Amino acid sequence: MRFGADILRQADQLARFTSDPPRITRVYLSREHRAAGEYLRELMRAAGMRADFDALGNVVGRYDAEDLRAPVVMSGSHQDSVVDGGRYDGLFGILSAIACVRDLSARGRRLPYTLEIVAFGDEEGVRFGTALIGSKAMAGAFDPRWLDLTDASGVSMREALVAFGGDPEAWRTVDRCGGNVAAYVEAHIEQGPVLLDAGLPVGVVTAIAGGSRLLVAVTGHAGHAGTVPMGSRRDALAAAAEMLLEVERHCEENVGLVGTVGILRAAPGAINVIPGCVEFTVDVRSGDDERRRQAIAAFEEAFAKIAARRGVELASKTIYEVAASPCDARLQGDMARAIAAHGVDVRRLPSGAGHDCMVFPAVCPTAMLFVRCGNRGVSHHPDEIMSAEDAELATKVLLHFFEHLDLGR
Amino acid sequence: MRFGADILRQADQLARFTSDPPRITRVYLSREHRAAGEYLRELMRAAGMRADFDALGNVVGRYDAEDLRAPVVMSGSHQDSVVDGGRYDGLFGILSAIACVRDLSARGRRLPYTLEIVAFGDEEGVRFGTALIGSKAMAGAFDPRWLDLTDASGVSMREALVAFGGDPEAWRTVDRCGGNVAAYVEAHIEQGPVLLDAGLPVGVVTAIAGGSRLLVAVTGHAGHAGTVPMGSRRDALAAAAEMLLEVERHCEENVGLVGTVGILRAAPGAINVIPGCVEFTVDVRSGDDERRRQAIAAFEEAFAKIAARRGVELASKTIYEVAASPCDARLQGDMARAIAAHGVDVRRLPSGAGHDCMVFPAVCPTAMLFVRCGNRGVSHHPDEIMSAEDAELATKVLLHFFEHLDLGR
Repeated sequence: MRFGADILRQADQLARFTSDPPRITRVYLSREHRAAGEYLRELMRAAGMRADFDALGNVVGRYDAEDLRAPVVMSGSHQDSVVDGGRYDGLFGILSAIACVRDLSARGRRLPYTLEIVAFGDEEGVRFGTALIGSKAMAGAFDPRWLDLTDASGVSMREALVAFGGDPEAWRTVDRCGGNVAAYVEAHIEQGPVLLDAGLPVGVVTAIAGGSRLLVAVTGHAGHAGTVPMGSRRDALAAAAEMLLEVERHCEENVGLVGTVGILRAAPGAINVIPGCVEFTVDVRSGDDERRRQAIAAFEEAFAKIAARRGVELASKTIYEVAASPCDARLQGDMARAIAAHGVDVRRLPSGAGHDCMVFPAVCPTAMLFVRCGNRGVSHHPDEIMSAEDAELATKVLLHFFEHLDLGR
Repeated sequence: MRFGADILRQADQLARFTSDPPRITRVYLSREHRAAGEYLRELMRAAGMRADFDALGNVVGRYDAEDLRAPVVMSGSHQDSVVDGGRYDGLFGILSAIACVRDLSARGRRLPYTLEIVAFGDEEGVRFGTALIGSKAMAGAFDPRWLDLTDASGVSMREALVAFGGDPEAWRTVDRCGGNVAAYVEAHIEQGPVLLDAGLPVGVVTAIAGGSRLLVAVTGHAGHAGTVPMGSRRDALAAAAEMLLEVERHCEENVGLVGTVGILRAAPGAINVIPGCVEFTVDVRSGDDERRRQAIAAFEEAFAKIAARRGVELASKTIYEVAASPCDARLQGDMARAIAAHGVDVRRLPSGAGHDCMVFPAVCPTAMLFVRCGNRGVSHHPDEIMSAEDAELATKVLLHFFEHLDLGR
């Protein structure tokens, strides 16, 4: 096995850089981030790259083309984790790209472009509440007000960057917009069951889904569970239950949508009291922004009808919205050919989760390779697994992609 | 106005005996209980009764028949409140009965039975977690292990009784089973909207509903809100929502039932995670035990079908069950005649809430008179209201009942 076993071993090693053993918790600008970054930097250097931390704590390695004016292709993913996360989320994209360079370098093969591998410091946003800090900085979307955001201990991002050895005031130097970047390519564990259910080790991502999040408040009348007849009730929880099932029904009937009610709180929350107030969230995602907007409109119409019929009050607001980030059609085709070249059926699928890749269309065309996630597709969890065989194949596909990428077409 | 204005004024006065001004919170064996009990004892004495606290902190007043061997008729209700409760719940039944005695006494009218009025120390069960302490003790259902129950501060019921001036070891003396008790009659604010919606000031209670409480746990698979397709989900919250609506549907379609899901908790409870575990409660009540048991069976069957179809696990257990407590048919008739004698249409209705009355069938036949509750029937809440006119009429009805009660039939 050329790559897979090494990558899994490296991921095991990186799992030890955690604030929370035996769980994996590694947040931006922590000691564990520093240790993981140094480990990745040494891997990059050993693979034949120039590598170091940048001003914002991203580790950047460059495998230079012979022609120093050649374009740059970027690859990588994030080093940070959620609280009690999995060991392949993010890291696989860094480790597999490094493995490709090590292989190229060992063969003395230079590429017609400089391959730059980035281990982003923050994608998950656990520490400062704002996500994708590294990739957004590279895509010209860093907001310097973020430097004043504080973590749960009151430490600001600015202070944390200085303590880390970074340079908060140099955030502009990280920006790649206007640079000579020809493509961004990211390999990532799927974090869902689609490839697993299809029996496929890898797939081509068509788009990173856009998403909307609603916060819905339903207000009825609290009342005594024994004394208020059914016909006189204004049960906020029953109304919310009906709304929730409407979200589910709409997303089941309309392909390309997922909708989730993840939080639901009923008050006052006593066994013998009819709930008078319910708050719930709706998270809806699609690779197709129009379909997502239609879903939101359908939900709002259905919610209003349910509320009117039941005599409860309804307040709904959008608390988050992000457009879909489509992957480049030509690069998708290149990735599909790299998969087919390894005798694997080509499956195209959207990514329901967000990734560093999603902010790069501001810089260059993008591509993503998904790798099968075991255990029913569980991720952000210690049960996240990837087989060595899948890691092997995915790295071979990625290497094939890098070696056959034609930027002159 | 003979009674109504005085009773409302007395209730206002009693509202000042609270641990929690301006809210009304008066729990068993508290200083406020002592003060309210002394106030009620003085009202009883001023009305012409012998009155004092008993061993468990109930205030008992007796308006003796001339014949000391005459049977006893008991009346009254509870002096304690829930946290932030209303001012008529419980107290109206005590104050209206005292008003009747004051009227009889002023007219020099003795009854062919001794009328005993009780202000029960505890019905709500707020302090020690077990409810109906006073009435259960009178009905031979006091469990001496309760003396070791402790409140939130670690004070046992035994210690609290001693501090109150009671006598925990004398709990048996309170028992009325085997005594010469011919009836128990309780007036109470309805705590629901039935009389209000019917435009009636009073009604005859047919039974105090029996109840079952279920704790239901639904276990599916937690998962990423973006990456798990709709068809691969095992959403515990969507399953619970369907179960909840089934409870509502069944109780709407079957008269004489009320069913409530008052508590619902979804875990892990994150906006972008499909809920993997949900716990919810079902409270179902009916004056007809058979109908309630059929409802529970119907719920369990429907829940199992929903769980099977959705591939989630289900665990359901009954955590509380109490049989319905029917009121005596003959005494209901007497109460109906007392209502009709005041030109009011007779409405019969079950009580969905529990009352001291519910434990007295172990002692004697029972009757209850409900009084209209304003504000949509809100009770256990500062917004609980009763009009002076309704208090007046209800007290006249109760007095008529006492004066016309024929124990010799």
